[in-house]
Amino acid sequence: MKIAETDFQAWMGGVQSRMERALGRLLPPAQLPPARLHEAMRYATLEGGKRVRPLLAFAAGEASGAAPERLEIAAAAVEMIHAYSLVHDDMPCMDDDVLRRGKPTVHVQYDQATALLVGDALQSLAFQIISENKIADRPEDRLEMVRLLAAAAGSRGMAGGQQIDLEATGKTLTVPELEAMHIRKTGAVIRAAVLLGAYCGKNLSEKELKALDRYAKAIGLAFQVVDDVLDEDASTATLGKTAGKDRKQGKPTYVSALGLPAARHLAQELREQAHAALAPLGDAAKRLGELADFVVLRKF
Amino acid sequence: MKIAETDFQAWMGGVQSRMERALGRLLPPAQLPPARLHEAMRYATLEGGKRVRPLLAFAAGEASGAAPERLEIAAAAVEMIHAYSLVHDDMPCMDDDVLRRGKPTVHVQYDQATALLVGDALQSLAFQIISENKIADRPEDRLEMVRLLAAAAGSRGMAGGQQIDLEATGKTLTVPELEAMHIRKTGAVIRAAVLLGAYCGKNLSEKELKALDRYAKAIGLAFQVVDDVLDEDASTATLGKTAGKDRKQGKPTYVSALGLPAARHLAQELREQAHAALAPLGDAAKRLGELADFVVLRKF
Repeated sequence: MKIAETDFQAWMGGVQSRMERALGRLLPPAQLPPARLHEAMRYATLEGGKRVRPLLAFAAGEASGAAPERLEIAAAAVEMIHAYSLVHDDMPCMDDDVLRRGKPTVHVQYDQATALLVGDALQSLAFQIISENKIADRPEDRLEMVRLLAAAAGSRGMAGGQQIDLEATGKTLTVPELEAMHIRKTGAVIRAAVLLGAYCGKNLSEKELKALDRYAKAIGLAFQVVDDVLDEDASTATLGKTAGKDRKQGKPTYVSALGLPAARHLAQELREQAHAALAPLGDAAKRLGELADFVVLRKF
Repeated sequence: MKIAETDFQAWMGGVQSRMERALGRLLPPAQLPPARLHEAMRYATLEGGKRVRPLLAFAAGEASGAAPERLEIAAAAVEMIHAYSLVHDDMPCMDDDVLRRGKPTVHVQYDQATALLVGDALQSLAFQIISENKIADRPEDRLEMVRLLAAAAGSRGMAGGQQIDLEATGKTLTVPELEAMHIRKTGAVIRAAVLLGAYCGKNLSEKELKALDRYAKAIGLAFQVVDDVLDEDASTATLGKTAGKDRKQGKPTYVSALGLPAARHLAQELREQAHAALAPLGDAAKRLGELADFVVLRKF
């Protein structure tokens, strides 16, 4: 007997299928030379993950009345940045991981040089698709999307967070230091996902954009706290990546800094902050609220 | 006694100094956390190279009457893409080189993880600075710059050329196959340098843009042919990178495909093609013509 799908689950499944098709279309065909690179780019990006960042972009796009044809491209750009970061992070000189989304990592399935180029080319493609498709009313807004995503990915954002993470291995970080790391490492691109989604639609007011930004900050941290809890709690089979790895590698986590109960409590607090931030957006923020619950209550 | 500087040498020195200052300003300060990453980004980009791509951007900008304040930013974006590609290419999983521009390569001076992140962050920064600075009259033109540079860097451009290069090691390529590889590997970004420089100024006609494109294609190939000749001919000290390396690694080059005399002859032919392409631009293309000579007649 099939369990009745909630409205949220149906929406989520719809966005995920739509994204799979959009990414499949926006990535170069696997047969196009150099075929090994293009095949590996598709391997790294397709059939993978919960698509949390695209879901956030679509939910924010609902709040600004954006067309799904625009949202799927903005969301694909963010997801390509995310996918590239996973490919590079998994490489032997970084986290040296062999399993991702239940499959061998790109450098294991192909080779290290191909993995390096897959990441590099996915990053370029993210900016290319924003510049090639009319996904906002004004060209200025698309330049703002490029700016937001580039800043989120760069040395003051994701890449900088990775560097802090590398240097923190084996050290004890305070909770504010952990927060400073994760705001860059995962928070910046999550924030970009929310704002790029919003920019696909009608112009939001300063107040509404600030509300989205506060929501994005809370949800970005919540996502990381829950990741740390799951890394401690769940099995490799459930996660689709190696469980308990952060602890074994001596990486500071919210669990190592706070203990498991306080980390769980923090996740709930951040969920409440995310909901509170959405108040100025009213009913239009329904999906964003549901996503806050999903991010905190997920088991994988 | 000082040898009298030609007008071209003075122009070149002026652009090179200007670029050094611009890159120094556009790169994050070395002290900004994460300091190791920012210091390494500066190490990878500053005090290095002939700045051929910026020179091409400035020369093309002369043809479209572009302001140097715009050109230095467009040129910096192209140079950041070039610098990132060198950092990643030198890594052990790619060409495994220890010397670049007379200095230890980034992964030798720092470490492999930092080198990976330096390349990643330089790529992001290239797109960020185009989106943050008004370097063309219309926002549409800046989106076109993002598109050109992203396509040039991506899997159908530079990264794709690298993949073909990796797969070609130990093989014999025909001259058309070599050309197909180099059009992607170095030609695409050189073409982007010329066109981005042109877009900083007044709108050029279709005919003028096509002339620039033909010039860029010839000069991009000439650059590679001369590189192959110098790799065979010159010393490590003169080149500032390991000489004779391509041959030792079994990489197909124009010298291995054609022999040294015919490779030299091809470089001269491409120089003539570059000059011929510039005819529709008249006197405004003076610097572009001089650069064609410089690229082919250089000894380093």
